[in-house]
Amino acid sequence: MNRENFLKEHAPCYIYNQREIIDQCNKLKTALKDFKFLYSIKTNPFPAVVHEVYEQGFGSDAASANEVRISADSGMSPNQIFYSAPGKTDRDIIECYGKCVMTADSFWDIHRMNKEAENRGEILKIAVRINPNFSMTDEVGNPAKFGIDEDRLPELEKVLSECFNVEMIGIHVHVRSQILDYKLIGQYYIRCFKLAQKINNLENVNIEFINFGSGIGALYDKAKDKPVDLEKLSEMVVEIVRENKETLNAELYIETGRFVVCNAGTYYTRIVDIKVSHGKKYLIVQNGMNGFLRPTISNMLNKMKAAGELSLTEQEPLYTKENEFEVRILNNSKKIEKVDIVGNLCTSMDIICEDKELPYAEIGDIVEITNAGSYAYSLSPLFFASHDLPGEYYSLIDGNIL
Amino acid sequence: MNRENFLKEHAPCYIYNQREIIDQCNKLKTALKDFKFLYSIKTNPFPAVVHEVYEQGFGSDAASANEVRISADSGMSPNQIFYSAPGKTDRDIIECYGKCVMTADSFWDIHRMNKEAENRGEILKIAVRINPNFSMTDEVGNPAKFGIDEDRLPELEKVLSECFNVEMIGIHVHVRSQILDYKLIGQYYIRCFKLAQKINNLENVNIEFINFGSGIGALYDKAKDKPVDLEKLSEMVVEIVRENKETLNAELYIETGRFVVCNAGTYYTRIVDIKVSHGKKYLIVQNGMNGFLRPTISNMLNKMKAAGELSLTEQEPLYTKENEFEVRILNNSKKIEKVDIVGNLCTSMDIICEDKELPYAEIGDIVEITNAGSYAYSLSPLFFASHDLPGEYYSLIDGNIL
Repeated sequence: MNRENFLKEHAPCYIYNQREIIDQCNKLKTALKDFKFLYSIKTNPFPAVVHEVYEQGFGSDAASANEVRISADSGMSPNQIFYSAPGKTDRDIIECYGKCVMTADSFWDIHRMNKEAENRGEILKIAVRINPNFSMTDEVGNPAKFGIDEDRLPELEKVLSECFNVEMIGIHVHVRSQILDYKLIGQYYIRCFKLAQKINNLENVNIEFINFGSGIGALYDKAKDKPVDLEKLSEMVVEIVRENKETLNAELYIETGRFVVCNAGTYYTRIVDIKVSHGKKYLIVQNGMNGFLRPTISNMLNKMKAAGELSLTEQEPLYTKENEFEVRILNNSKKIEKVDIVGNLCTSMDIICEDKELPYAEIGDIVEITNAGSYAYSLSPLFFASHDLPGEYYSLIDGNIL
Repeated sequence: MNRENFLKEHAPCYIYNQREIIDQCNKLKTALKDFKFLYSIKTNPFPAVVHEVYEQGFGSDAASANEVRISADSGMSPNQIFYSAPGKTDRDIIECYGKCVMTADSFWDIHRMNKEAENRGEILKIAVRINPNFSMTDEVGNPAKFGIDEDRLPELEKVLSECFNVEMIGIHVHVRSQILDYKLIGQYYIRCFKLAQKINNLENVNIEFINFGSGIGALYDKAKDKPVDLEKLSEMVVEIVRENKETLNAELYIETGRFVVCNAGTYYTRIVDIKVSHGKKYLIVQNGMNGFLRPTISNMLNKMKAAGELSLTEQEPLYTKENEFEVRILNNSKKIEKVDIVGNLCTSMDIICEDKELPYAEIGDIVEITNAGSYAYSLSPLFFASHDLPGEYYSLIDGNIL
């Protein structure tokens, strides 16, 4: 079936593109040869996508016990699955024990992991997430719900000395996502590496891996932004790689954030009605904000900004920036008209875009929204108004769609 | 099982309270005796809740084909189910035909309903949603994706004269939800009634019912706001009721909006970790924004407002107002501390409340969030990070929980 017919039949749906996902994986592997990569499952847990990144040699950054299971189902082995999240339950720890590399997010986590290992008469190798005394831009630490403050390393050393059944072999750091400036990322990696060296000097710690976290930014606005310059980033990390070989000899892991799949995903929906009201033209589509929430949040915040003095900052994962989506109508019309594209929910908030110049549309035409590969399906209120859920498909290099 | 043990076992979960739902229904029935009521399913489609409002004699305002099905499953008969939504698909119309009273939202809808009736060799009685030349506050019409503009009644008359297989017997109007001022609501009802009289004068129209729409506001902030004064509202509509009996003799329907269930629902979640970071104390709970999104949106917008000059307006159904939730910790502690309550997602946006003075908490304590009966479960990104979904329960008057 050709693409047009497929969409007419299956929209509203998400399609994730294998070619683009593999290309993104290759960019990372080529530029950062001495690193390994962890796919941030929460950005898009669709099984075909997770299996793809596994095939590309990536492990996973799992943020819940179910994400550990999804990772294992994709083919990943326990030493490729890195489970790190605040607020784990006892059940999370028991269920994930042995199925992944667990990262303690708090002293409480260390004690519970120790207890579970003790119950099993084992020594469990764990990582610890650290809330560092630096941010993405400076050398100042900030309060966070994540990890153990770097200021509290003496306490960490003490706790580890009392917990005989865990051995700390890794650290995880993550301060901010969606960074496009390679200098910031490079500088951040250098700081993380120094932190790992410092922590390796604690008693009972033997750093075997560093998870640098914080993702690699995805490109939302192709007109205004440039992708992360991975080549220059790779030059910045040469020194880390060299020094690591001579000292820690640790595995170096980078979380992919939404870099791998964000641009490779597209949301398609169908125009089901068109109307003019008081001179304004509306294209009404199926599953607007209940199919893909982020455009609605984006529209809401940009409108608030226009109305007031508000300067908008990132509100990840709900909002990144202006012009974060391209909206297209898939037809051959040459005529342009100004329209609002709105969803078919009974709320006037359900807006994809407003006052946008687009090709003249007809009922039945397909609307395409880009950058829908990350924080899209799973971040949307899919059950709202009890509409049928949008589908998810994987578009293979050979042209087939799974 | 007592409540405390139930919550320890079943949180994170929503509990909807039968007593409060029945009380709200009774308030409406007592004050507005000459009206019938339609429960807005989209505010909360939990089957036990929908069945309850059916038992109380309410019909349904269904916003999707699946909501028509949910209404029928609750026990409602087709003449109690009012299906009104923009952007219906052909399948929606075919599936719902005969199972409810359908409201056309556009000329396109009228034509399709007519065609389906023609295919069946029947005359279908329909309503039409009108976008009126008034708002909740004045006599000015606004562009909207909903309904047919009042300005276009001549066109409506013409279309109806050509569509032999439909008969227009009702109108639906809805301009804004969540109004607490009885004067505004009463004035709005009067305007709707006049509009119905005007439309009844069109050729081929015989108004048998009016759906006044726009809901009755729910009380979010008990400290600052007062509930809708239903007694005074009933005085304002005396004239409508009298004139209706003498003229149209139509059934008068009021949509409940979130009035019935909003305050009757509560979200409960469990503290799974507590930590101090750079002097700030965090209580980390399960399923924060992925269990109940609105507190996070509320926190985000209020923070933006504090940072800029923005004056926040309603963003229904995502945001109503400051202090729209009360957050409590269910323990007997007398000691007060200032905390952030945050969810266990790997995003710093996942906040229930910040810098809030609450009783000293321990891991395992239950956090309660009020006003979680409407636009809560189904408006949340439940699949985010693949956590287990919160449960939903119905708390009966006799103390049992379903």
